[in-house]
Amino acid sequence: MDNIPFMERLQRAVQSKGGPVVVGLDPRPEWFPPDVRSSPGGKDRRRVIARDIVRFNELILDAIHDVAVAVKPQLAFYERWGWPGMQALEQTITLARQRGLLVIMDGKRNDIGSTAEAYARAYLGGNVGPVSGDEGWDVDSGLEADALTVNPYLGTDGLDPFIEYCRQDGKGIFVLLRTSNPSADELQGLVPADGSKGEGATELLGSTVAERVARIIVDLNESLPKAGGYGPVGAVVGATRPEEARVLRRRLPGVMLLVPGYGAQGASGADARAAFDETGQGAVVNSSRGILYAWRRERPGDPGTARDFAAAARRAALAMQQDLQRALGAE
Amino acid sequence: MDNIPFMERLQRAVQSKGGPVVVGLDPRPEWFPPDVRSSPGGKDRRRVIARDIVRFNELILDAIHDVAVAVKPQLAFYERWGWPGMQALEQTITLARQRGLLVIMDGKRNDIGSTAEAYARAYLGGNVGPVSGDEGWDVDSGLEADALTVNPYLGTDGLDPFIEYCRQDGKGIFVLLRTSNPSADELQGLVPADGSKGEGATELLGSTVAERVARIIVDLNESLPKAGGYGPVGAVVGATRPEEARVLRRRLPGVMLLVPGYGAQGASGADARAAFDETGQGAVVNSSRGILYAWRRERPGDPGTARDFAAAARRAALAMQQDLQRALGAE
Repeated sequence: MDNIPFMERLQRAVQSKGGPVVVGLDPRPEWFPPDVRSSPGGKDRRRVIARDIVRFNELILDAIHDVAVAVKPQLAFYERWGWPGMQALEQTITLARQRGLLVIMDGKRNDIGSTAEAYARAYLGGNVGPVSGDEGWDVDSGLEADALTVNPYLGTDGLDPFIEYCRQDGKGIFVLLRTSNPSADELQGLVPADGSKGEGATELLGSTVAERVARIIVDLNESLPKAGGYGPVGAVVGATRPEEARVLRRRLPGVMLLVPGYGAQGASGADARAAFDETGQGAVVNSSRGILYAWRRERPGDPGTARDFAAAARRAALAMQQDLQRALGAE
Repeated sequence: MDNIPFMERLQRAVQSKGGPVVVGLDPRPEWFPPDVRSSPGGKDRRRVIARDIVRFNELILDAIHDVAVAVKPQLAFYERWGWPGMQALEQTITLARQRGLLVIMDGKRNDIGSTAEAYARAYLGGNVGPVSGDEGWDVDSGLEADALTVNPYLGTDGLDPFIEYCRQDGKGIFVLLRTSNPSADELQGLVPADGSKGEGATELLGSTVAERVARIIVDLNESLPKAGGYGPVGAVVGATRPEEARVLRRRLPGVMLLVPGYGAQGASGADARAAFDETGQGAVVNSSRGILYAWRRERPGDPGTARDFAAAARRAALAMQQDLQRALGAE
């Protein structure tokens, strides 16, 4: 496995591909074109669906591999089909790697101690060495990715086990910082009263729980090697709140932002712009449905074919790349 | 599938088994006795390990099925072995059900919209009906449990998709509320400044982020059917902070608490007592390592056999049950 730090590999990919496009691999078999749906035959329908998922992902990967810098499989859409779904995930990772794509696992995992270590081992794999009595059990999960999304509710104890894989194996994590769902403010937007206003916190972000998470992220990166100016601990920041993304961007120097919400979720290149620094660096932008199922939007009601889906996905990925290039060039 | 509400099934089990013991199934193959470890033969070592995990879990289940009310598989310890690990999880669920045990999946899942739905579908399964365009795709994941642990960082949007399965299929969730790791206070202990001190908040709990999560939990249960006084939304509350557990217990009427940390993590029956109400109801207590690997503590250095591990696990589960009975009778 490549020990070049993840954030360096990511930035190189952005350079060579010509833009920070990440494609979310959220397979919904019920939306696949008829020629990618096998007939249900066989005892275990899950295995048939899992095979279809791999076929679908492969056609998408072929269509976007020279445009996207990374793919982001959303774990729920694989777990939903049980172990055959996880087998499909393993095959998808292999296909993505074969096409030179980085893999960011979107699992939002969170736990402490040996449990967090087990998650890290599952999704960041690598050769970090024996994990608490794990000697001789360095068996791959088959699910090793380049980076993983994690949830910060347990504090730094819940992040440290993942950090080891960043430090030693060139992996990355993206900590869930600010989401753009309607109820996100219930916790993330709370304003602590203990006078702990973070340095650099501004009027808009205030001194919220999200601001505290931001501080944790900056502190973690502090002690870790930087690559091209960016530490291995990144942050997930929703694209549909540009004013806030702009504040977080300034608040988080050296922190790579992973920005979901482009396309189907309503954010434009101009919205996503807020997550980048003045040189147009520091973020990658994800689109899932908007690319995978672009055909369904282009031709509502037309079931389409594998070829149609691939062509539409490529058009959508290229359009997204151009939209971002335009937005990043505009400032 | 049984549509009796999970919290009712749980309380009935506590009655019939004689105590609120939950056994955490966190398989660590490197700690298994030699006669439960297969020789590595075969191409895929993961599959061998996964088979060993099922054998080990089965011997534990046989040893504790008439003592424990539920088992709590920790998902990380299955994901760590990739898809064969998930297959072992599926087989473990089947074995637990065959022995009349409830299954609480410890996955701390969290996401929004269709992704959260996919997690709910994976682990709470059931017949909640078509999930956003999912018509005709009501295929089981094979991983359907009775309840799932979830992380609240995304707010109620992140909990609602799971709630549907509680409402319609008699499932339960346990929301991560207060953990007992050293850095838990970094976020959970923050005190919001917006004058939003929750009703019932006390000096000790103050008006923390955890208190806000407590309020979300109480509000969710408000609109949901109660079973034996308890709504389907429970809370995870660490056992190693008894003063705080006592406050949360009062703050959360009608909320079942899932209390980890007993045994190997340092909490005693007397500590766990704080999570129960004055009638000795309202909580279940989990022990994982303390039961599964009790033999290793009893006889350090002696590798033991399947029979030794089973007998020691049974002794430990019974001792825990008695310890809790004593603590609950003492007040």
